[in-house]
Amino acid sequence: MMNRKHNIEDILDKGIELFRAQGYNNTGIEEILKATGIPKGSFYNFFRNKEDFGDKAMARYSERQNTYIETMLNDTSLSPFERLKKFYLSMIQFNEGESCSKGCLIGNLAQEMGGQSQLMSQAANRYYNNWAQLIANCIEEGQESGEIRDDISAIELGHYIHNSFNGSLMRAKAGQDAAPLHLFQKVAFEFLKK
Amino acid sequence: MMNRKHNIEDILDKGIELFRAQGYNNTGIEEILKATGIPKGSFYNFFRNKEDFGDKAMARYSERQNTYIETMLNDTSLSPFERLKKFYLSMIQFNEGESCSKGCLIGNLAQEMGGQSQLMSQAANRYYNNWAQLIANCIEEGQESGEIRDDISAIELGHYIHNSFNGSLMRAKAGQDAAPLHLFQKVAFEFLKK
Repeated sequence: MMNRKHNIEDILDKGIELFRAQGYNNTGIEEILKATGIPKGSFYNFFRNKEDFGDKAMARYSERQNTYIETMLNDTSLSPFERLKKFYLSMIQFNEGESCSKGCLIGNLAQEMGGQSQLMSQAANRYYNNWAQLIANCIEEGQESGEIRDDISAIELGHYIHNSFNGSLMRAKAGQDAAPLHLFQKVAFEFLKK
Repeated sequence: MMNRKHNIEDILDKGIELFRAQGYNNTGIEEILKATGIPKGSFYNFFRNKEDFGDKAMARYSERQNTYIETMLNDTSLSPFERLKKFYLSMIQFNEGESCSKGCLIGNLAQEMGGQSQLMSQAANRYYNNWAQLIANCIEEGQESGEIRDDISAIELGHYIHNSFNGSLMRAKAGQDAAPLHLFQKVAFEFLKK
């Protein structure tokens, strides 16, 4: 007997990796099914269509990232500034481990599908707002403790820093080289520190 | 009689706009030909294949951007800092005029094709390096005149600032809203000023 829940997650995880590596429009449902060994009928039991699948893949990826960000940024054994540095460094190392060839699912799909799918671009927008808020909370703590500059609001810094990271990630993907990410790490924290 | 040169440029310009709006993999050669009214045979007289066409579209877009950046950043009627501000503001206004629904061809294709086409990702990488160098030249002038912080090298600031802009552009495309671009303009120049 097939385990329904297990199968949904398998398909979503395979979709996440294929979309990250080769884009949304370039990845067919057939390819995802082939990679998971799941029959076409089951796919349409789980998902209305490819866009619904893309939306659910983004939701799963985003939830995982959310947990990861919260774990990193709630680690009170480090100061807020050090927590932020460790969080970004760990993302840089993760991307380096993939030769910077994939990037962030949400960023990739926001860029590729921004003008095409309202459903997916609105989802991307929501996830980015959540992440920026989590980063802003940590920045605010650092502003209160005097580690982080407070001439710009925490939420503005949170959005700006994370947008900068995403731009650097895109640049790293173009060159398949982590140098733009290490430059981000150097310059962004020079900028943030009080 | 068809004007060969005129036709190449028409196809490239149509390709640039379609790729910006809906991505590379999502745009077929047939669609580009239909939009320009050029027969398929002529396309293959001009281009070896779709990748070659994508590469030449990027080259044309990049050349146009280069001229634009040089014109803006060589305007010595303004100080280097004011030139940079005006340059980014004009790009923000241009994207606002398109409801932020398209973005930068090079950034979009770097993100979408980074893991797929060596030819296109290496081209994106080259164009970004050129632009960062032009921006760095202006930053260096501003460092010499004492307007721009000089604790970080001009070339590092040039890359970082332009990567931040691209991340903000991606974010603006997700929300089809220019707010991330205006936030970039506010925060980046607060960061750059001495």
